[in-house]
Amino acid sequence: MVIDLNCDLGESFGAYVIGQDELMMPYITSANVACGFHGGDPSVMRKTVELCLEHGVAIGAHPGYCDLLGFGRREMKLHPQEIYDMMIYQVGALKAFVEVAGGRLHHVKPHGALYNMAARDRELAAQIARSIADVDQSIILYGLSGSLLIEEGRKAGLTCAHEVFADRTYRQDGTLTPRTQANALLETVEEAVAQGVELAEKREVVTSSGERIPMQVDTICVHGDGSHALDFVKTLRKAFEAKGIEVRPYESI
Amino acid sequence: MVIDLNCDLGESFGAYVIGQDELMMPYITSANVACGFHGGDPSVMRKTVELCLEHGVAIGAHPGYCDLLGFGRREMKLHPQEIYDMMIYQVGALKAFVEVAGGRLHHVKPHGALYNMAARDRELAAQIARSIADVDQSIILYGLSGSLLIEEGRKAGLTCAHEVFADRTYRQDGTLTPRTQANALLETVEEAVAQGVELAEKREVVTSSGERIPMQVDTICVHGDGSHALDFVKTLRKAFEAKGIEVRPYESI
Amino acid sequence: MVIDLNCDLGESFGAYVIGQDELMMPYITSANVACGFHGGDPSVMRKTVELCLEHGVAIGAHPGYCDLLGFGRREMKLHPQEIYDMMIYQVGALKAFVEVAGGRLHHVKPHGALYNMAARDRELAAQIARSIADVDQSIILYGLSGSLLIEEGRKAGLTCAHEVFADRTYRQDGTLTPRTQANALLETVEEAVAQGVELAEKREVVTSSGERIPMQVDTICVHGDGSHALDFVKTLRKAFEAKGIEVRPYESI
Amino acid sequence: MVIDLNCDLGESFGAYVIGQDELMMPYITSANVACGFHGGDPSVMRKTVELCLEHGVAIGAHPGYCDLLGFGRREMKLHPQEIYDMMIYQVGALKAFVEVAGGRLHHVKPHGALYNMAARDRELAAQIARSIADVDQSIILYGLSGSLLIEEGRKAGLTCAHEVFADRTYRQDGTLTPRTQANALLETVEEAVAQGVELAEKREVVTSSGERIPMQVDTICVHGDGSHALDFVKTLRKAFEAKGIEVRPYESI
Repeated sequence: MVIDLNCDLGESFGAYVIGQDELMMPYITSANVACGFHGGDPSVMRKTVELCLEHGVAIGAHPGYCDLLGFGRREMKLHPQEIYDMMIYQVGALKAFVEVAGGRLHHVKPHGALYNMAARDRELAAQIARSIADVDQSIILYGLSGSLLIEEGRKAGLTCAHEVFADRTYRQDGTLTPRTQANALLETVEEAVAQGVELAEKREVVTSSGERIPMQVDTICVHGDGSHALDFVKTLRKAFEAKGIEVRPYESI
Repeated sequence: MVIDLNCDLGESFGAYVIGQDELMMPYITSANVACGFHGGDPSVMRKTVELCLEHGVAIGAHPGYCDLLGFGRREMKLHPQEIYDMMIYQVGALKAFVEVAGGRLHHVKPHGALYNMAARDRELAAQIARSIADVDQSIILYGLSGSLLIEEGRKAGLTCAHEVFADRTYRQDGTLTPRTQANALLETVEEAVAQGVELAEKREVVTSSGERIPMQVDTICVHGDGSHALDFVKTLRKAFEAKGIEVRPYESI
Repeated sequence: MVIDLNCDLGESFGAYVIGQDELMMPYITSANVACGFHGGDPSVMRKTVELCLEHGVAIGAHPGYCDLLGFGRREMKLHPQEIYDMMIYQVGALKAFVEVAGGRLHHVKPHGALYNMAARDRELAAQIARSIADVDQSIILYGLSGSLLIEEGRKAGLTCAHEVFADRTYRQDGTLTPRTQANALLETVEEAVAQGVELAEKREVVTSSGERIPMQVDTICVHGDGSHALDFVKTLRKAFEAKGIEVRPYESI
Repeated sequence: MVIDLNCDLGESFGAYVIGQDELMMPYITSANVACGFHGGDPSVMRKTVELCLEHGVAIGAHPGYCDLLGFGRREMKLHPQEIYDMMIYQVGALKAFVEVAGGRLHHVKPHGALYNMAARDRELAAQIARSIADVDQSIILYGLSGSLLIEEGRKAGLTCAHEVFADRTYRQDGTLTPRTQANALLETVEEAVAQGVELAEKREVVTSSGERIPMQVDTICVHGDGSHALDFVKTLRKAFEAKGIEVRPYESI
């Protein structure tokens, strides 16, 4: 049993600090590095890439909508070609930092509203997949487990990783409970760790209505900010160790 | 006798159009493509790169200060490391578009205030040179003829191209007359063409005070906007032809 | 018979020029001045305001989404409070320029996607109306004729101006034919002038399916860019003169 | 004996939080609120203004260079008219929030590089002063004690407040020790409180070379971020109380 633990990092911007990247590094196996559109800046990108290489963490690009004020979380209606172009731009910029530092770009995971919209909008998903394949066919696409983004990624010839969340609740159809609903999040570290273990060990989850359903699970997203983030990831790693679940970047699985 | 004719292109942004890129393409041999900081956007970058490839024009990155409002022409005091980082980011982004389109990045020429400051600030010049060399040692650095930027480029192991201007006047020490002075620009197309021919043919220029001085000349910058731009470059090309001066991208010289 | 002719102006940004503001000024009676988010910058705002005052053109704020790359034309999903706040910011900034120049802010007309979304989204419309009323109850709200924005403006106690378009076609229900459809625009200056006259004179329009329907008409939007803009507005003014239709800013009607 | 304690606030941006504005409020008498260019956004501006009104803190605009990435701390070379225009824009935007909330704009204090450059560049200082006077002659200008900015403010007919720093060291000529020097900052809360008391009580400071010199002191700047900020301002307030020094916004002095 193996699993990948990915985390969104490098989202600080100039004088503004978000997250606790250095502290998270020892506990994760792949990082999604912001590319300057929703967060991150050239200097933060360089430092984050260097940090990943020091810790042997697989480096991914984490492109988002050009909306720093909204942190890439606000939906924007772009022309499909604009999506493709902004993907090439952001992925290309991060790739340069990775290669200058002697690494290689391991994966791409869209951020925020782009991620959510790409999970259900086939055209959007196709543009994202095509842009990544055009940059380098060997880059892995991280997307919402079972989503259209994964489907389109496969069609474009990409290796895809199904992403699940330890601290979000799932509905009977395998989709995430929307954040607008009260029970969208598991409230305690214990619950989230338990769900994380179940996802990694059994590739199953217990939905908010109580059924146990199978899930496609390649990588678990852990959050890098918030007061419990560090506590959670440490506890999760211990639980994995106790169960004999190996933790490593997706590709080597 | 050979010469390169370079032009700043791809500086449009969203709904805002600057320049007449398509019309200039047939007459130039290398293009400096804006990278989204002082001008240009991801879609403009893609289209400009495609246009260059169609016309066999060598593609260069044209990175600038992150100051769209000032079009990268306003001096900014950045930390040397910030210069390095913003270079990697912009060059990396453009390089991705070039490679996706099947081309290769031929050169880098800093834009506006960054270009001017790098001509006389050794630390700034060194950061720019180092960033380019770190991305790819084979990329050519375009800089002001005889400037510190060229010097630092050579130190960093880069091939460098001395850039001159057909329509700007030069002072006795070989530097450009500052734009703040009345006689900074040659006023007629005829004068500019004459100076362009002299620079290409004899590697010499007549200064504003009347002396003839030698110049290092690898590439001549022609402007892409303004009502006379197209007229000028066509006339210059004809004059070159008449003199038997071959026009091609710098590297092949 | 009186009518107001409004035009979107001041949308240039730094080195980027859009429109032909000075040429349009003599022919319009109210101007919607961009506020720096979708277009415009502080210097452009000041100059546009001064130009309006010179020509006796009523000055309006033209706030939009913070999306310069998309020129405010791309839909964005913002929290209602964010809409309110970005309205206060933009209207406040323009109001300062107007008052410094000795004028007063006459109206507000939302721009692009914000205008279109506010025509059919009651919550969005209410936020816009509330923000304007909070700044100054005497500011007039320009909105799509017969739209929810006008309705919410009235509820907020604002004087509202129904805006119509001379060069767009209308459907049987009085709404504009979407731009995605082939027949969205009247193709010739003659057709547009004819529709403009009918709108001003009879408060009626012939829909794309041939019926004549009544319209609420307080102000006609004329476009300031495009090669025919100037020709169109001149011809329209002549046609109004011939019909004895007086042209002046909305409030005095 | 009376003194004003001012603090830079409202510098958060979207998802990015800087400072601990709510905690500082009870201890300060005037706030410099960021205007969206170097920090702050429309929603942060509204909330900060409301917070100030709740706590009876005098509200000032804190305009800066349009350089969010550099937090307005990087020097930029702008045309004097551009300085004037960006001042009107930012001051106007904040003024709208203040007036909508039922308050009035009390003062303006330039931020970061703009503040520092205006202290020694007469032309820049004059533009800033003129812009404020043009908005409202009754707005107070906060500037570095004894600087050109104060001089130009007075010439423009503005009431000006000499600002001093409790935690920065001063040189024999009354200027601040540059931050690039090792001894630019007083290291302990005790030293800073002692200097703050001396500045407020005696209008004097002991320079880094040991002399006691007179200072013009109308307002003391306290920093709102950093781990010691809250501790410092509380201790300073206690020390003022013990000495019978009254703390209130500058104008009422």
